[in-house]
Amino acid sequence: MDAVERLIQEFAKMPSIGRKSAQRLAYYVLGLEPEEAGLLARAILDVKERVHRCTVCGNATETDPCAICTDPRRDAGLVAVVEQPSDVAALERTGGYRGHYHVLHGVLAPLEGVGPDELPTRELLARLEKSAVREVILATNPTVEGEATAVLLTRLIQPLRIRVTRLARGIPVGSDLEFVDQATLSRALEGRTKVE
Amino acid sequence: MDAVERLIQEFAKMPSIGRKSAQRLAYYVLGLEPEEAGLLARAILDVKERVHRCTVCGNATETDPCAICTDPRRDAGLVAVVEQPSDVAALERTGGYRGHYHVLHGVLAPLEGVGPDELPTRELLARLEKSAVREVILATNPTVEGEATAVLLTRLIQPLRIRVTRLARGIPVGSDLEFVDQATLSRALEGRTKVE
Repeated sequence: MDAVERLIQEFAKMPSIGRKSAQRLAYYVLGLEPEEAGLLARAILDVKERVHRCTVCGNATETDPCAICTDPRRDAGLVAVVEQPSDVAALERTGGYRGHYHVLHGVLAPLEGVGPDELPTRELLARLEKSAVREVILATNPTVEGEATAVLLTRLIQPLRIRVTRLARGIPVGSDLEFVDQATLSRALEGRTKVE
Repeated sequence: MDAVERLIQEFAKMPSIGRKSAQRLAYYVLGLEPEEAGLLARAILDVKERVHRCTVCGNATETDPCAICTDPRRDAGLVAVVEQPSDVAALERTGGYRGHYHVLHGVLAPLEGVGPDELPTRELLARLEKSAVREVILATNPTVEGEATAVLLTRLIQPLRIRVTRLARGIPVGSDLEFVDQATLSRALEGRTKVE
């Protein structure tokens, strides 16, 4: 297989990149100056070499503990449990969350062989037991796997007498009621909030 | 800037990859095994290290001359002039073209400082003069720049008493050759018209 075809295949492995997009990206690389291609390759390797998991929260970080865990202005009594580092980035972009995180790096997925023992629940519980956390926000995805994970964590955390909450499910801001799926709309009805 | 952000910015430079897609790709790399990330980085570097321009036709190749120029079953009397190596790949995918190529690596773009002297027209004419080419298919893109380039090449090639043709206008105007579906591109090849 030639080098261009191999690069196309590598790009085609990436999420939401089909064969045609992968071709386009490969020819983009072919047209780069060698130094520019070097920067791209270096950036890929750097992410793997420099970024590790924070030993406290599991988030992707270049320092340990991470900048969030060591930030004195953040509220250590509030911990959001998320599936992936990208979810931390998404919550950080809201600018509205000032607590800490715990990254599971996975969800319950029995069909893929991920049961309760494969999730780092012991680490999470140990962390909660030795620190003064007053609330855990279960911010796993609103999918079957994410919901099942939230149910499991609720059962494990509640005996510690810590308040357990879940991100509100409802209609997305800016969406059209007509096009919102029934499950979401049902959730939005159940979780309706009082207008003060 | 941290390693993840730097990788996001590198990905965001790629064609049709916005900031959100770039984030998604960067977190994909973050989740790869180090060896997998190494393969991706290696594939990028390999394309720049191993792939060069064929000294005959200018196409991207790992051997010189390229596999197309040296294939005895192909018709050396027929030369398709294209803008980029990706256009060669697109024409090859039709399976309907058995001639040779000439890759310009550009088009006339006066606003970007690419005039007739910046295109490798001299190399093309030298090649045509010393070989028994009976037809040149101008397969530049159906854009303003591609058409202007075709007009220029027609004027230069016609004195050599070589038949000059242009891909049929089955190609949607304003589109990019690389992304035209194979059936349309095959039609355009079959219906090529003589430039008078």
